[in-house]
Amino acid sequence: MIRDTDIRDGEMALDLAPPCDAALRFIGKIRTPWATRAECPRQGRPDGPECQIEVMEQFLPALEGIETCERLLILYWLHEARRDLVRQNPARRGRLFGTFALRSPVRPNPIGASTVNLVSIDGARLTVRGLDCVDGTPLLDIKPERCAFLDTQTKV
Amino acid sequence: MIRDTDIRDGEMALDLAPPCDAALRFIGKIRTPWATRAECPRQGRPDGPECQIEVMEQFLPALEGIETCERLLILYWLHEARRDLVRQNPARRGRLFGTFALRSPVRPNPIGASTVNLVSIDGARLTVRGLDCVDGTPLLDIKPERCAFLDTQTKV
Repeated sequence: MIRDTDIRDGEMALDLAPPCDAALRFIGKIRTPWATRAECPRQGRPDGPECQIEVMEQFLPALEGIETCERLLILYWLHEARRDLVRQNPARRGRLFGTFALRSPVRPNPIGASTVNLVSIDGARLTVRGLDCVDGTPLLDIKPERCAFLDTQTKV
Repeated sequence: MIRDTDIRDGEMALDLAPPCDAALRFIGKIRTPWATRAECPRQGRPDGPECQIEVMEQFLPALEGIETCERLLILYWLHEARRDLVRQNPARRGRLFGTFALRSPVRPNPIGASTVNLVSIDGARLTVRGLDCVDGTPLLDIKPERCAFLDTQTKV
């Protein structure tokens, strides 16, 4: 678990002015079995537990046709993460890495991105598998996952 | 091209208060061959043109180790997109879709997400292939792309 207040050996923090370039609107909330960051898995898995994405009622029309998407890209706001570290000393990696070479929640704009499998839909509530975030994480966006790029890459 | 001021048949806009739940910091700029949204491809391609990601100098340490990542997930701010449409009438699709069932730039939080191949690194400037956004798009984040999920999915 990355601590919120400490700095590990070799880590580097910037002294940044408050961010003010654009503003986000939370559009819902993510429900997972993990109450704290310490309990969260390191990475979501397609065979992980079912989680719920609760979209605010006013955005219900924005879900029309979502049943045609088997896989979705979910963007969410890692509201517990500090934002000032540019170099990190991740546990289990044995060396320092720049923040942009890591999937750590600690980053200048702490936006989480996970690809999930859509299991079922009940009104404005989606059940999915593949998330790894803490219960109550604010939702930012839902998009169909792109697959064409990967298909081309792997030359299937 | 999605128009900024018009609404097409069947489209639905919400009357939303200004967003204020979290603030973003632009960390750089994306350079592409496309000066306007009308010129942008519908989707980035791995064999598309080389584009540059210019990271602000203060974030240079955050790029340490990025050369170990062949594929990156780039998040950027679609600064020209309106944010109030929940139902859209996309050209070439022949029916209405909710915003979350589309990759349209028009969405409550207009965050673009593209997977790119890293071609080369020159200081705080990355050359990549796979982007589809307009020249000058503000950069939000760079992360290593996850592959394990897909590998498990396709049972390779």
